[in-house]
Amino acid sequence: MNTPTLLFIGGHDPSGGAGLQADLETALGHDCRAASLVTCLTAQDTRNVEVVYPQPVEAFSRQLDLLLADIQPDLVKIGLLGDTALAQLLGSRLATLGAPVLLDPVLAAGGGRAMADRALIEAIRGELLPLCTLVTPNRREARLLGDAAEPELAVRKLLDLGARQVLLTGADEAEGERVRNRLLGRDFSKTFDYPLLPHPYHGSGCTLAAACACRLAYGEPIETAVKHAQDWTWRCLEQGIPLGRGQWLPNRRTEIPA
Amino acid sequence: MNTPTLLFIGGHDPSGGAGLQADLETALGHDCRAASLVTCLTAQDTRNVEVVYPQPVEAFSRQLDLLLADIQPDLVKIGLLGDTALAQLLGSRLATLGAPVLLDPVLAAGGGRAMADRALIEAIRGELLPLCTLVTPNRREARLLGDAAEPELAVRKLLDLGARQVLLTGADEAEGERVRNRLLGRDFSKTFDYPLLPHPYHGSGCTLAAACACRLAYGEPIETAVKHAQDWTWRCLEQGIPLGRGQWLPNRRTEIPA
Repeated sequence: MNTPTLLFIGGHDPSGGAGLQADLETALGHDCRAASLVTCLTAQDTRNVEVVYPQPVEAFSRQLDLLLADIQPDLVKIGLLGDTALAQLLGSRLATLGAPVLLDPVLAAGGGRAMADRALIEAIRGELLPLCTLVTPNRREARLLGDAAEPELAVRKLLDLGARQVLLTGADEAEGERVRNRLLGRDFSKTFDYPLLPHPYHGSGCTLAAACACRLAYGEPIETAVKHAQDWTWRCLEQGIPLGRGQWLPNRRTEIPA
Repeated sequence: MNTPTLLFIGGHDPSGGAGLQADLETALGHDCRAASLVTCLTAQDTRNVEVVYPQPVEAFSRQLDLLLADIQPDLVKIGLLGDTALAQLLGSRLATLGAPVLLDPVLAAGGGRAMADRALIEAIRGELLPLCTLVTPNRREARLLGDAAEPELAVRKLLDLGARQVLLTGADEAEGERVRNRLLGRDFSKTFDYPLLPHPYHGSGCTLAAACACRLAYGEPIETAVKHAQDWTWRCLEQGIPLGRGQWLPNRRTEIPA
């Protein structure tokens, strides 16, 4: 298959653990071409997010339109949105674009800071979920987005709202020595199980979602794609490094098996 | 030697040819760790830059200070500044940081759009050049920054203003079938010669400067570093692709010899 082109839309993280750097490094390692748009700049370090600076929607819209007139992505991956107007704009533009969409709903930072209010969550539910081939919430994000206390019940609601598949990740609420992630569709589910690693990591969810995006853009079936993406992300974390004073960073220089 | 950490400061290019994506991809390929700060978002495609949106200096300053309190870079590479206040802030912060600085003075886009006014050029001359281990202008940028009609005379002025070395690139005004780049210091110069490639490229200068930054961060002597960086960049361009409707994009998935 030809090298696919992905469009990554999300936040910028100066520390490089999360956000667009996670996307771009993952894409390069997976031999994919990448274009990108910044929804928000952020002041953050490896401990927490201090300030989120969303782009004005007019500026973002101009960047998006100019890019899409020039480059045709095979898949669009969305991470941090940070602003309701940006989510609404993307809903309308991506509905006509027709490329598959993967949404990693970044609703709270690893350090705990909320990154979405009620209006943004409603915009994601109503305008973006129906476009999504895959959504990758952790358990806390699934509860917020699905508006249900029990994560798997919340995931059912995301499927009812139009998401084709959901990868529910469990590292944020791991019990014991194992992390359990679950891939759920309307009529199937599959469980993946990994040893819990010893550190908190900055950008693990971004890295996993980006790897899923690259695998799907190459046409891998959904179960294979998320399996390979989880295997690789786990190894990036296992080889992670304490670059700053807080969470460890994934090492995306980790080799990707053919 | 331990894996170095680089701080990349520059513009974001949605098409992915230039700007921070060039930096981050180059760093990953060269097995370097990367942190980054966005000076300006841009609306651009593979033909030209339409709008430059510099960050407010207060927001940039907060991101910079938070990052430098958390992560210690071994080298700082600066690309597009786009705003005088950002250049002045960086001059003061980097003077106390003490890490080597590489400046790729992005004063005009490949498509021709000016990216710096007189005040910004003065701030670069007065506050950033004295900090620079290496500056990598093309011939047009050297004239603007050195305020002289003859590029090599302009480079002498950059050295007088405190830059330790200048790599003057020649692809923007190549004559015949060859591109001639020159590395100049106070008491030496060296010429490098490459076959001219058949397309215009979007991000060739960013890629070359980022590769120089990675090589220098690993401690390579300046002549070896710029030679290896030019060799690799030339191959990235030779394997470049027409992703959009304008200039071709460098292919930074190009292998880097050990």
